[in-house]
Amino acid sequence: MSVNQTTGKPLFIGIDGGGSKCRATIYSSEDAVVGTGVAGRANPLHGLSKTFESIQASTELALRDAGMNLIDSKTLVAGIGLAGVNVPRLYNDIVNWEHPFAHMYVTTDLHTACIGAHKGGDGAVIITGTGSCGYANVNGKELCLGGHGFALGDKGSGAWLGLQVAEQVLLYLDGFAKETALTERVLSYFNTKDAMGIVEQLAGQSSGTYAKLARIVLECAHANDEVALGIVKEGAAYISELARKLFEIEPPRFSMIGGLAEPLAPWLGKDVIAKLSPTLAPPEFGAAYYARQQFQKK
Amino acid sequence: MSVNQTTGKPLFIGIDGGGSKCRATIYSSEDAVVGTGVAGRANPLHGLSKTFESIQASTELALRDAGMNLIDSKTLVAGIGLAGVNVPRLYNDIVNWEHPFAHMYVTTDLHTACIGAHKGGDGAVIITGTGSCGYANVNGKELCLGGHGFALGDKGSGAWLGLQVAEQVLLYLDGFAKETALTERVLSYFNTKDAMGIVEQLAGQSSGTYAKLARIVLECAHANDEVALGIVKEGAAYISELARKLFEIEPPRFSMIGGLAEPLAPWLGKDVIAKLSPTLAPPEFGAAYYARQQFQKK
Repeated sequence: MSVNQTTGKPLFIGIDGGGSKCRATIYSSEDAVVGTGVAGRANPLHGLSKTFESIQASTELALRDAGMNLIDSKTLVAGIGLAGVNVPRLYNDIVNWEHPFAHMYVTTDLHTACIGAHKGGDGAVIITGTGSCGYANVNGKELCLGGHGFALGDKGSGAWLGLQVAEQVLLYLDGFAKETALTERVLSYFNTKDAMGIVEQLAGQSSGTYAKLARIVLECAHANDEVALGIVKEGAAYISELARKLFEIEPPRFSMIGGLAEPLAPWLGKDVIAKLSPTLAPPEFGAAYYARQQFQKK
Repeated sequence: MSVNQTTGKPLFIGIDGGGSKCRATIYSSEDAVVGTGVAGRANPLHGLSKTFESIQASTELALRDAGMNLIDSKTLVAGIGLAGVNVPRLYNDIVNWEHPFAHMYVTTDLHTACIGAHKGGDGAVIITGTGSCGYANVNGKELCLGGHGFALGDKGSGAWLGLQVAEQVLLYLDGFAKETALTERVLSYFNTKDAMGIVEQLAGQSSGTYAKLARIVLECAHANDEVALGIVKEGAAYISELARKLFEIEPPRFSMIGGLAEPLAPWLGKDVIAKLSPTLAPPEFGAAYYARQQFQKK
């Protein structure tokens, strides 16, 4: 097992798999960062072999960054946070992988994000980026809300904001909704004047394509555009409700994570903002922390 | 050119391409059905070669049904209604096809459906099945509304109703909406008690999968289920508005087509129902009629 040369204690690697990136960080037993690596997407729901490939690649980059040999992966204790592993079938696929580590502990990306945000303590998180969801872990009790994916749920997320605004502009072009500053911004974004020009660019596209429209909606909402305000307020109201549901199990700490966490803040409930604390560490830290916990239980 | 043995006039074939089926009917110059054929999907937006294959296959079946030889396709005057041919690129791809007909005239599936519904006369149609859209043609002026596709638009369609009810049930499972008869029906349809069970069956699925939920929503709305009623009324209100927009260009006749046309009727505006007339002929008739019009202009 890889050990810190000074302390003689084992090294841990925390890996955060995501829809666009996989981040790996090697920590010493004293939480010092020894090396980091970033590779491509690692979401088991969208491909198992790509997930394994990205975990392997980010690990190798982190080892190299730490000045270690690739073979040293066999001595690391790994913690991995992945989407979808609450589905038993996927969980089994992952833990049966012939992984390159000494030990591997797998949990949901929500769990590792939450552990990271509160540096190991109990708490709740809301993640609002391309998608949205809520998670709390208090005295071993887990609560997982939303996150049903585009276009089924994920209210208040970037993709949801984008879908709402695209719908509104298409309704306007058909004469069902009025023109606002938002309309003009969206038409100029798509460089078109008609519905077909928008549909051609959005039909069949992934949530990421829709999420790119979120910035326009938020800017227009700040400029008091009526339609944009309506959309942003509806999304923020859902996120506030999500937070209040999480508060019901009395998490000692609450953080928000993701690209939309800050932009949405002005429209969140005052009771929600009052409980908001900064995230203390990244999800990779949470993953390594989880691995250490599980490893010490052995 | 194939001619009616009695009258010596040319034969026309009308072809209606769709997302699931391609229907072809050979008509005499006196509108008598000479032969029919049905093949697989023919939507150029979802594949050009499959579209050509289905047009060819349905034509061959219609020829066989008419007791004609396959080679006789080279003597037919064809009219084809297809989705997406209002996109110039797709229109060019279609008309440049080395088709098996004497002449081929292509227009949108909305146009041929409208000609069919009014047996050649001016008028308006609303199509509500898996998707929804409106179309009117009056004195050569065309109006085309909605039909932006799932999940971007198509309000009041089967897929839209299905998406709304899935969202509502997922919100209920997270504690954001109350339980109604609809909830129970949907959970039993998916044979699950939790959100993950629904998400697994719907994530990434096509509009057709969502449209299968429409029947449940409509039945629950009839039984006065509050949530189902809210969804159905919102969808029907949009369809009514769609009709009123079409009425603005004063179509002499108005029909509704598609699997949801009749089920939605109880919730449509009285002004809309008052103007509703039955469809007089199928889209294939419209396609053949269009071909004859264009052919006689030559």
